[in-house]
Amino acid sequence: MGGDQGPPAIIGGVHEYLKAHDGRNLRFLLHGDETAIRAEMARLKLSGGNMDIRHTDKVIPMGEKPAQALRRGKGTSLWNAVESIRAGEAHAAVSAGNTGAMMAISKLILRMAVPALERPAIVANWPTARGISVVLDVGANIDCGARQLVEFAIMGESFHAAVHGSTRPTIGLLNVGSEDNKGHDEVREAHRILREWGQGLDYRGFVEGDDIAKGTVDIIVTDGFTGNIALKTTEGTIRFLLTLLKESLTSTTLGKVGALMVKPALRTMVHRIDPGRYNGAPLLGLNGLVVKSHGSTNAAGFASAIRVAVDLARSDYLAKVAAGLERLGDIMEATPEATPEEAPVSQPVGA
Amino acid sequence: MGGDQGPPAIIGGVHEYLKAHDGRNLRFLLHGDETAIRAEMARLKLSGGNMDIRHTDKVIPMGEKPAQALRRGKGTSLWNAVESIRAGEAHAAVSAGNTGAMMAISKLILRMAVPALERPAIVANWPTARGISVVLDVGANIDCGARQLVEFAIMGESFHAAVHGSTRPTIGLLNVGSEDNKGHDEVREAHRILREWGQGLDYRGFVEGDDIAKGTVDIIVTDGFTGNIALKTTEGTIRFLLTLLKESLTSTTLGKVGALMVKPALRTMVHRIDPGRYNGAPLLGLNGLVVKSHGSTNAAGFASAIRVAVDLARSDYLAKVAAGLERLGDIMEATPEATPEEAPVSQPVGA
Repeated sequence: MGGDQGPPAIIGGVHEYLKAHDGRNLRFLLHGDETAIRAEMARLKLSGGNMDIRHTDKVIPMGEKPAQALRRGKGTSLWNAVESIRAGEAHAAVSAGNTGAMMAISKLILRMAVPALERPAIVANWPTARGISVVLDVGANIDCGARQLVEFAIMGESFHAAVHGSTRPTIGLLNVGSEDNKGHDEVREAHRILREWGQGLDYRGFVEGDDIAKGTVDIIVTDGFTGNIALKTTEGTIRFLLTLLKESLTSTTLGKVGALMVKPALRTMVHRIDPGRYNGAPLLGLNGLVVKSHGSTNAAGFASAIRVAVDLARSDYLAKVAAGLERLGDIMEATPEATPEEAPVSQPVGA
Repeated sequence: MGGDQGPPAIIGGVHEYLKAHDGRNLRFLLHGDETAIRAEMARLKLSGGNMDIRHTDKVIPMGEKPAQALRRGKGTSLWNAVESIRAGEAHAAVSAGNTGAMMAISKLILRMAVPALERPAIVANWPTARGISVVLDVGANIDCGARQLVEFAIMGESFHAAVHGSTRPTIGLLNVGSEDNKGHDEVREAHRILREWGQGLDYRGFVEGDDIAKGTVDIIVTDGFTGNIALKTTEGTIRFLLTLLKESLTSTTLGKVGALMVKPALRTMVHRIDPGRYNGAPLLGLNGLVVKSHGSTNAAGFASAIRVAVDLARSDYLAKVAAGLERLGDIMEATPEATPEEAPVSQPVGA
């Protein structure tokens, strides 16, 4: 029932997914208003052979606060979808609904696998010059210590391998320079742990803001404050450039004629950076797979989110993350904190 | 002597500046190698009537660390340029040299007007949909408390008014959402001070990453870590999009023909976002005006940095900042810190 469009995007997404992928070993539990769901299924001529409708007429509004969603959420479509994981009926839940409510309900029902995290981390799938990188956290955990940053590295690595198909994803820590003494205490300490511990992760050191679009590494680790601002600043920049491009092309007669000729090429370019193509980001750090779709998505975008959920459920993602976190726990107990001498005063940028 | 090109860009910049602006009430002190400077002046047919050459054969290499620059910097062209401000010989210094050295030497010679700042703040002049906004700090002060953020607001406001000509610049605080309870303690406390104090500043509240390119406010205030990553992420995104655009346009024959026709329009667009046009950022928070130019600048870019220095020196910028900081000092002493009840737990993004 979630997202700006509700059932047309969600059931449409199931339809799109089944057109492009083998659905034989797949079962859908569709939580929501049965009449609305059946109407969409009829419209799309979906047989429903591998679908169960779980009727509820309760929904969580898109604008509801997480605390209210927790109090009033029981029995809503979102709640029931997450509950079906806990009950062992589903391997993963996918929703285009209220993100804050999704995080709060998922945390309550499934519990965090990463106790040190305030709430599940959110990854962004980021089109780059070399493919798709993932950036995390992009907004859920505002204050992150070194340990949380290393946890993001572990989860991001397993996510990239499961969903974007890399065999040995590379990891970078977002910072204001590449030397060991750059940045604040948390990022320097996470750098030390990742470099000295290393075990199983292909850690490449600090990366800077421009390395994201370059695709220098597959996973860019940062705190939720910085990650959210990097993501939204980039979205704003892309919108601004596309507007400027349109204005420039239509400002002269010659430009207008040329614009018609370059239109197909520009469409290819816009497609390449279209976030809908990469829609679907798990809430990381839970005991279970909950995949968040953009609320504004259409059927094709929701199919992408379903693809993410299926790929994660069929991979060893959860087991791999659990093992990585356990090893990190061991190392954190065995390793003393960095002494002040090991954490020199930060240097200015460009120094 | 600074920058990638040295005297050709610097003396060329003086030449470009004098072609475009009235230089009658202006005097240049040119610090560096006299032979190299005279050669450039001869090449450009500069009479030198309003220029004094202050010869030195010592220079600070672009890669030198700030600590080394402090130890070995005395008598270099950069040192002498800053020293000429302290000696009352110059109203402002402009350099395309080593940024870290420039900050360290300026702080040592001129001292901070803002004692709470670790080092001078750096502003970025940011082309937006509505003109030029300034973002600060973009890299000098990694850890910023609420007070530093408010100081950035005061300095950014005076800078925007002096250099970008706004009569009443608007200010926003960069955050992960617009509600009062979003973000970390420092940003919420700065928000409270700016909102309750208000005095003289047109503070518009929290802004998000995509508000920068929109030009929602004239001054975007943030800590040096977040600001540096927002800036470099944007630079990387722009380079990526322009590369994609070029690739898309040359991928088909029709596109190639169209590309020739849209070339002038695209040049206009690239010009609109060319950082060289907005080159020149003061090191903020010093007792004196030191303007940093990009090291990779050409003569036109260096002329822009000279323009910034002249506009600042002819404005009431330093007096206005001093008055604003004094008022802030009074208010900080009079106001108790926010109590824990006033600083609620942060909410997730999208909640």
